[in-house]
Amino acid sequence: MKPIFAVTMGDPCGIGPEIVLKALAKYPDIHNNCRLIVCGSADILKKTAGLINLSVDIHTIPEDNISNNHSNGIICLDIDPVTFDHSFGNISAAGGKHSFAYIKKAIELSQKKKINGVVTAPINKKSLKAGDIPYLDHTEIFTKLTSSQRTMTLFVTGDLRVFFYSRHIPFKDISAALDIRDLVESLSDCRRYLTQIGINEPKLALAALNPHGGEKGLFGTEEMDILEPAVDQAVKLGIPVVGPVPADSVFHLAKEGHYDAVLSLYHDQGHIAAKTYDFHRTVSLTMGLPFLRTSVDHGTAFDIAGKNIASEISLVEAIKAAIRYYW
Amino acid sequence: MKPIFAVTMGDPCGIGPEIVLKALAKYPDIHNNCRLIVCGSADILKKTAGLINLSVDIHTIPEDNISNNHSNGIICLDIDPVTFDHSFGNISAAGGKHSFAYIKKAIELSQKKKINGVVTAPINKKSLKAGDIPYLDHTEIFTKLTSSQRTMTLFVTGDLRVFFYSRHIPFKDISAALDIRDLVESLSDCRRYLTQIGINEPKLALAALNPHGGEKGLFGTEEMDILEPAVDQAVKLGIPVVGPVPADSVFHLAKEGHYDAVLSLYHDQGHIAAKTYDFHRTVSLTMGLPFLRTSVDHGTAFDIAGKNIASEISLVEAIKAAIRYYW
Repeated sequence: MKPIFAVTMGDPCGIGPEIVLKALAKYPDIHNNCRLIVCGSADILKKTAGLINLSVDIHTIPEDNISNNHSNGIICLDIDPVTFDHSFGNISAAGGKHSFAYIKKAIELSQKKKINGVVTAPINKKSLKAGDIPYLDHTEIFTKLTSSQRTMTLFVTGDLRVFFYSRHIPFKDISAALDIRDLVESLSDCRRYLTQIGINEPKLALAALNPHGGEKGLFGTEEMDILEPAVDQAVKLGIPVVGPVPADSVFHLAKEGHYDAVLSLYHDQGHIAAKTYDFHRTVSLTMGLPFLRTSVDHGTAFDIAGKNIASEISLVEAIKAAIRYYW
Repeated sequence: MKPIFAVTMGDPCGIGPEIVLKALAKYPDIHNNCRLIVCGSADILKKTAGLINLSVDIHTIPEDNISNNHSNGIICLDIDPVTFDHSFGNISAAGGKHSFAYIKKAIELSQKKKINGVVTAPINKKSLKAGDIPYLDHTEIFTKLTSSQRTMTLFVTGDLRVFFYSRHIPFKDISAALDIRDLVESLSDCRRYLTQIGINEPKLALAALNPHGGEKGLFGTEEMDILEPAVDQAVKLGIPVVGPVPADSVFHLAKEGHYDAVLSLYHDQGHIAAKTYDFHRTVSLTMGLPFLRTSVDHGTAFDIAGKNIASEISLVEAIKAAIRYYW
C-alpha cells in the first residue's frame, strides 16, 4: 500500500499555497509512490491556482475519508481556524494561526497513524508570534506537540546527508559548546536515526573544527582535546564513526559515498556544504519524532508570494525524501 | 601569440611527475591555447612514463630556447640541483631541494618575462624542511622570491570564486581576527585582483560569520559591529561589495552569477564551499604576485605515487585557469 503524507500548506500569505499546487500538479511520478493530503485551505488553493493559471481539480474531503480516498487532483483537508481576509505578502496574526492549525492537524493524523509522515511548506516566525502561537518554529511545534525529548536536523542533498551538533548559536560560542559526552550522545543518535530511515550499518564521519583538522595542534586543539576522544568513546560503544575528518574534504567524501552521513559541528559548516552543493535540492528532515517530517529549507518569501515566480523544486524534493525515508 | 606557462614538476617523489605527464599528454586542446614548459627532471619524467605505460616524446631544451621552441611532445627544462637516487613515495632532502629548484627557475623565467605564469604541481613541506629550504610552502616561496608585500589566495571552482580573509589560524581565533580596516583593505585587494584577471567592474560579496548573518544580534554581533561597518566603508571608497551575506547562501548565489567573487572570513568557510561543490575542479590562484600562479589544491600523495592511480584533473583545471586568467 502506498504511504500517505500530509503536506501542510504553510503560511497562507507566503509562497506555500503556490509551491504546494505546483508540486502536486506538475509531477505525476510522485503520485505513483505515495498519496498526498494537503492540510490547508481549499479556498486559498483555488484562488492561488487562478492567479498562477494552473488548471487543477481541488477536492476537499472529511478527515474520516483519508485512508479510502483515491480521487485524482489535489486532495485538501480544509482547516479554517479563524475568519480570514486573505491577501499575499504580509505578516499577519491570521496567517500565523492558520499555519499552526494546518501543522497541528497533520501531527494529529500522524499520531493516530492515519498517515505516514508530514511534509511542510514554509511558515513565518513573526506571523506565528502575531497569532499568539506559543512556539518559535516548526521544530518546536513538532517537538512539543509530540512530547519528543530530543530532535535533530538531518539535511539531505542528493546522497549527501548532514546532521548538526549545534545550530543557532553565535559563532564564537561554537568551540565552547563542544563536549565529549554530548558528542558521543549525538553520534549515537545519528546512528539510530540513520537506521530508522533505512540505512543499516551506517558509516558516520565527524567533521573537524580547525583548518586541516588542526594539524596535531598547530592550528587549534579541539580535535585532540575533544573530538578525537569523542570518536574513540563512540567507537568503543560500537558506533561506526571515523574522524575528526577535515571539514574541507569530509563533505566531498560523503558525496562520493565514503560515509552515509556527516555530523557537522555548527550551523554554517553543514549548511555551506549542502547548499553550495545544491541549494534547491537541499531538504531538511526532523529526526527524533515518532514519525518522519521533511521540509523545504527556505522561507515564506512574502515578497514574491502569489506572483507565479516561486520554485517548487525544494518541496518536490521534500516529498521525494519522505517517500524514500519514511518508516 | 600563445601564452607560455611553466609547469613545475612538484616533489619528484610524489604524484607530480605522473599528473604532469598525464595532463600534458592527454588533453590536446590545452596546447591549442598555450605552450607549456615543464620545469623538472627529464629522467624522472621518462622513468614515470615507463611506469604508467604512457607513450610520449619528452624533449629537453636549453633555457634560451623557450620562446622559439615549437616541438611536439613534452618540453622539459632539465633542472638537476643535486645528485639523486630517485624513488617514489618518501620524504627526502633531495626531493625538497629539487622541488625548490624547479620553482625557483619558474619564478626567474616569469620575472624575466620569458613566460606568462606558473602552474605548480604539489610539493611536500617536510621534504622542503629536510632539504634545508628556508621556506614553508609554495606561497612563501613565491612571495619571498618575488619580494611581494601581500598575497591572497583565490579559489576558482567553475564560476565560483572565493578569496580568503584568514587561513591557517585556530577556529576560536577567527572572530578576534576580524578587523574593519583589514577587511576594507582585503576587499580593495579583491577588487584589484579580479580586475587583474580580466573581470572588469567586479561585484563582490562579503560572507557573514554567524548563522543567518546573526539575525540582528540574536546569534552573534560581529555582523553589526565589524562586517557591516567594513562593507559601508568599502562602498564609500567605491568598492562594489554587498553583505555581509549569510554564508549558507552567499556561495550558492555566487555560483549562480550574482557575485563575481566572495570574500570568505576563514579557511573552512571558503574551502567547504569550493570543495563540496567540486573537489577535483577546485584550483588555487595566488594573487598579489607580479605574474599569475595557479595550482592544484592537493598534496604529494606519497602513498599512491608512481602507481598510475593519481588523477590529473586538478592540474588540467589549473592549466585551464592559467589560460583563462593570465595577464
